[in-house]
Amino acid sequence: MTKKLKVAVIGAGRIGKLHANNLKTRVPCAELAAISDVYEPAAKELAENLGIKFFTSDYRKVLADPEIDAVFICSSTDTHSPISIEAARAGKHIFCEKPIDHDLDKIREVLNEVKKAGVKYQVGFNRRFDRNFKRVHEAVKSGTLGDVHIVKVTSRDPEAPPISYVKVSGGIFVDMTIHDFDMVRYLSGSEVEEVSAFGTCLVNPEIGKAGDVDTCVIMLKFANGALGVIDNSRQAVYGYDQRVEVFGSKGCITADNETPNNTTLYTSDGVMSEKPLWFFLERYNDAYINEECEFVEACLNDTDTPVGAFDGLQPVLIAIAAKESCEKGGIPVKVMK
Amino acid sequence: MTKKLKVAVIGAGRIGKLHANNLKTRVPCAELAAISDVYEPAAKELAENLGIKFFTSDYRKVLADPEIDAVFICSSTDTHSPISIEAARAGKHIFCEKPIDHDLDKIREVLNEVKKAGVKYQVGFNRRFDRNFKRVHEAVKSGTLGDVHIVKVTSRDPEAPPISYVKVSGGIFVDMTIHDFDMVRYLSGSEVEEVSAFGTCLVNPEIGKAGDVDTCVIMLKFANGALGVIDNSRQAVYGYDQRVEVFGSKGCITADNETPNNTTLYTSDGVMSEKPLWFFLERYNDAYINEECEFVEACLNDTDTPVGAFDGLQPVLIAIAAKESCEKGGIPVKVMK
Amino acid sequence: MTKKLKVAVIGAGRIGKLHANNLKTRVPCAELAAISDVYEPAAKELAENLGIKFFTSDYRKVLADPEIDAVFICSSTDTHSPISIEAARAGKHIFCEKPIDHDLDKIREVLNEVKKAGVKYQVGFNRRFDRNFKRVHEAVKSGTLGDVHIVKVTSRDPEAPPISYVKVSGGIFVDMTIHDFDMVRYLSGSEVEEVSAFGTCLVNPEIGKAGDVDTCVIMLKFANGALGVIDNSRQAVYGYDQRVEVFGSKGCITADNETPNNTTLYTSDGVMSEKPLWFFLERYNDAYINEECEFVEACLNDTDTPVGAFDGLQPVLIAIAAKESCEKGGIPVKVMK
Amino acid sequence: MTKKLKVAVIGAGRIGKLHANNLKTRVPCAELAAISDVYEPAAKELAENLGIKFFTSDYRKVLADPEIDAVFICSSTDTHSPISIEAARAGKHIFCEKPIDHDLDKIREVLNEVKKAGVKYQVGFNRRFDRNFKRVHEAVKSGTLGDVHIVKVTSRDPEAPPISYVKVSGGIFVDMTIHDFDMVRYLSGSEVEEVSAFGTCLVNPEIGKAGDVDTCVIMLKFANGALGVIDNSRQAVYGYDQRVEVFGSKGCITADNETPNNTTLYTSDGVMSEKPLWFFLERYNDAYINEECEFVEACLNDTDTPVGAFDGLQPVLIAIAAKESCEKGGIPVKVMK
Repeated sequence: MTKKLKVAVIGAGRIGKLHANNLKTRVPCAELAAISDVYEPAAKELAENLGIKFFTSDYRKVLADPEIDAVFICSSTDTHSPISIEAARAGKHIFCEKPIDHDLDKIREVLNEVKKAGVKYQVGFNRRFDRNFKRVHEAVKSGTLGDVHIVKVTSRDPEAPPISYVKVSGGIFVDMTIHDFDMVRYLSGSEVEEVSAFGTCLVNPEIGKAGDVDTCVIMLKFANGALGVIDNSRQAVYGYDQRVEVFGSKGCITADNETPNNTTLYTSDGVMSEKPLWFFLERYNDAYINEECEFVEACLNDTDTPVGAFDGLQPVLIAIAAKESCEKGGIPVKVMK
Repeated sequence: MTKKLKVAVIGAGRIGKLHANNLKTRVPCAELAAISDVYEPAAKELAENLGIKFFTSDYRKVLADPEIDAVFICSSTDTHSPISIEAARAGKHIFCEKPIDHDLDKIREVLNEVKKAGVKYQVGFNRRFDRNFKRVHEAVKSGTLGDVHIVKVTSRDPEAPPISYVKVSGGIFVDMTIHDFDMVRYLSGSEVEEVSAFGTCLVNPEIGKAGDVDTCVIMLKFANGALGVIDNSRQAVYGYDQRVEVFGSKGCITADNETPNNTTLYTSDGVMSEKPLWFFLERYNDAYINEECEFVEACLNDTDTPVGAFDGLQPVLIAIAAKESCEKGGIPVKVMK
Repeated sequence: MTKKLKVAVIGAGRIGKLHANNLKTRVPCAELAAISDVYEPAAKELAENLGIKFFTSDYRKVLADPEIDAVFICSSTDTHSPISIEAARAGKHIFCEKPIDHDLDKIREVLNEVKKAGVKYQVGFNRRFDRNFKRVHEAVKSGTLGDVHIVKVTSRDPEAPPISYVKVSGGIFVDMTIHDFDMVRYLSGSEVEEVSAFGTCLVNPEIGKAGDVDTCVIMLKFANGALGVIDNSRQAVYGYDQRVEVFGSKGCITADNETPNNTTLYTSDGVMSEKPLWFFLERYNDAYINEECEFVEACLNDTDTPVGAFDGLQPVLIAIAAKESCEKGGIPVKVMK
Repeated sequence: MTKKLKVAVIGAGRIGKLHANNLKTRVPCAELAAISDVYEPAAKELAENLGIKFFTSDYRKVLADPEIDAVFICSSTDTHSPISIEAARAGKHIFCEKPIDHDLDKIREVLNEVKKAGVKYQVGFNRRFDRNFKRVHEAVKSGTLGDVHIVKVTSRDPEAPPISYVKVSGGIFVDMTIHDFDMVRYLSGSEVEEVSAFGTCLVNPEIGKAGDVDTCVIMLKFANGALGVIDNSRQAVYGYDQRVEVFGSKGCITADNETPNNTTLYTSDGVMSEKPLWFFLERYNDAYINEECEFVEACLNDTDTPVGAFDGLQPVLIAIAAKESCEKGGIPVKVMK
């Protein structure tokens, strides 16, 4: 049998469970060896369901175990950067859920420590591993589209999160659009230099009272001269709307949503096809598995991870600029370098 | 036989020919009675081709003819407002190609004279009469989409105009995007209050030297609270790309391009369908006929024209704001009232 | 002005009106000069609506008029062959609605007389002039698909005709499938040699009582070795369903239905697009104009008509074979030569 | 942890490997416990790859093991029925690859033994578990389509099998169309009573020399009065073409192919989308997992399997009738009861 990467999952919440399940059943070269969660019963339950013996409420025990090669950091956002740093110092390869941190200094410290330790680092921008967006990325990279002129991203959630979550989320740009900021970098093959954002509150006035917006449009300028637009809504009643388009000097490519099946029904009422898959767990199911596999392979083969720590920093910088632009009524704001 | 509207076409260039041909053959309630063009041979040729006896190099002869009920002003842009005013004073109903003028005072004078004379006035925003955009408009108007949250317009020409034209065009916002500014008003059912535009020159550096941009993205704020985005390019190598999307609280509607046919070819090379119809003459062929018919019917039945003089003013105001925003690097600019 | 073909329309029913209207307004090189109908008021009404002075209840007056170049035979089916013969003898070019006749001897007599007189003859197989099917035909003819292996036609009406009509129609194969038999010849570029048909009565039992079927599937063998299938229904509740597919050694091409527009609506109920255009008048509107123009041009330029008298005979021969096969429970029947 | 079904895979060829891999990694309630293959090294290799200790060249050892609850029979076709009988007598639940046998008496013996033993029996008609066909089936079952009038199946392989395989395959109807015969039963919810088939050799003359056809069309009559058509080719150069359509009194539903992604590329050359997934391993990957899961659940919960032994018999009966019809030039042949 081929060599396997021994991994531990830190954080047994929704996304931790997702990764743990996949690592156990869908990632051939991974061996799930430990589960940690500050709330021990959660760690225990997940571990038992998956037949894992090592569970703990203290992630430091995981980091101290010399058998563990890599950790998946799926704990609460505020713990991402400190655990990243400790894990790097412990010599573990790190897969960290997005965002690394809201604080730029802390993200930069993570970058430093990771570099110093020489460990692998991957940020959980799962959408890059969607089969549709990957194809768009390749069309750009291969030159099929010529020079990139316009990048467009439509990204709408099927339902707004609870107000309690909105209040601690850091706002729509850091919480939701951050995926789209990563996507435009991935698709354009270039860095975002300047953004301008209009935001408003049309879905739920409570979101506005919490100081956030729920609907926004954003313009971007890229280093390679291209322009971009993003539109976001916290609530698309027909489901998770995730489409992109890249337009260039030699053509254009669009990526449509995924649906439960490819049937079309014709009746006297009309012609009906399927709605988009409901939300990210349905839509990006395979993308999660792909990102896990690529991380594991990068660790085993000592190659670069597909989304490094630098890729974790950039979208945060863009989000900060977008937030400022939106708060100032749409004036263009340059992205920090 | 039913009563017919006697019409004259002023200007026998490309768009004048188009209207004259349609009025002769496709608009049942119109009777094409005269053709005028400053270059008399052009007027003569068109008139003879269509079997029309009355042709002249002097549009004033047309205006002086009491038999003529209405005029189609298809002459050069700088003559639109003065001829409009003269025609109104002569008591003729007026169909005027866009834009009425680049000068706001002149447009307002046209509005005044038209009001004073009590004649019908229609501006040639032909895209409103496209079957796809009409359906989107109706979905908004009927409430199917609930409150409008986001309006999106993609509008790309298949090839850039000659530089000589670019130089006198007034710039992309006044010349090309003006159709899209009309479209977002038509689709949203609301007025644009503020715009922000990023523009750049990626298609042809000569366009930049002429002081214009060829690629742009624009954000809009509407009076009803909705947001909008437009993206433009002077050159889409695959043809005329004209798509819109309206997203609201109850759903979303998209309108796709028109193609020469609905076939799909499957070979070992791939799966191929048809490119969009090449340019506006192909794409909006039926839309031109529809706008002509609706104008003629409004005149005969004494009802409102579907696109009035006010609708001719607003897109110019938005274009002026967009141009200013773009020149100032994207700062938001309020649209004049 | 260019030379025009002077045409008369014989028969002022639904299809006669359609041709007359088009000839008057949409066929540039035709001059509609006369209308005839056995019921004179019908001829008169249509003529007056179109501003035609010559109307009559006696088509022989039309044939006797040396000014008339060509006739459109749109009278009842039983008169198609006798009027064709008289018109040929009178030296008129002939456009004849399908079918030429149900009686093979009479069709053959028409072929003889047309040949003898040296006049143009075109049968009204309008579907060949649909932009989609034309494209499929061209893909076969150009060799894009390689050798043809399988030809498929789906052809379903939106609603069954009245029982009174069914009783005199000659049965579904002669009345409805005849268009599909023409289509498979057009698409395959080959003759049908043998057919096998299953038919049944599922839409309306009254159709069965009238000795006809309303639902059928048909297999075909072509002279070039290809196979074919057709499926028919008298009632598709979602509208006129007219699709074809040709599969060959190098690929496959499909032609989809036409719709009122290209919009898609997404709501919490589902994703909805437009139903097919309701029936043949909507779907084949442009096809009728195309066939009229091509006939008129063939007459003026003395070239072959696109659908000759032989093309009028073949589908009748296939229909006769299909009817026999169906009545005998599906045994294969060879098509007469 | 929940109870698991202990399963053994008999036959370590392509399809045996597929099932073994899925049972090991994708079927939560299954525990893969043994692999058998007449060629022991094949059994050993597969077992070791999957970390299974029990492997053997003698399937009787598997049947004799009281720990084993169920077997997947993936050995050569001629062994399906004898091993099925032995497994039933040994009290094992049975998943058997299609076909059970080419010999009707042997199939009937299997049915008897399974009934006597009271074990579960499922035949590997994997396509029923495809998400698209399942949706079509449900639309029929729920009454959405009303009464079924026409069932259509297009089924074309991307490339013909080797001639050596063709010679022992039993012919296209038993080898390839058998899946479509199952599909029409599944979709129509009714039994096939009569078939008529035209077959020919257009892909490879060697197939004809081997006494088989490579291209065919088939008409069907169902017990519920509906009609059906199937078209098959051994070679579609653009990939595995697997589409179905059911037309009924209240509407129609179509199921399209699956593709690698949902992108569309627009260039000056045309508009390109993705080809269908290449062949059954790609297209029916998830369908295999679904059928395995449903079998395992039926065994654990003592419910009916979704595709029983009777469902294994019927398509063979239809295939025999189709073969006879084809050999006799297309005369209709009744399906044995």
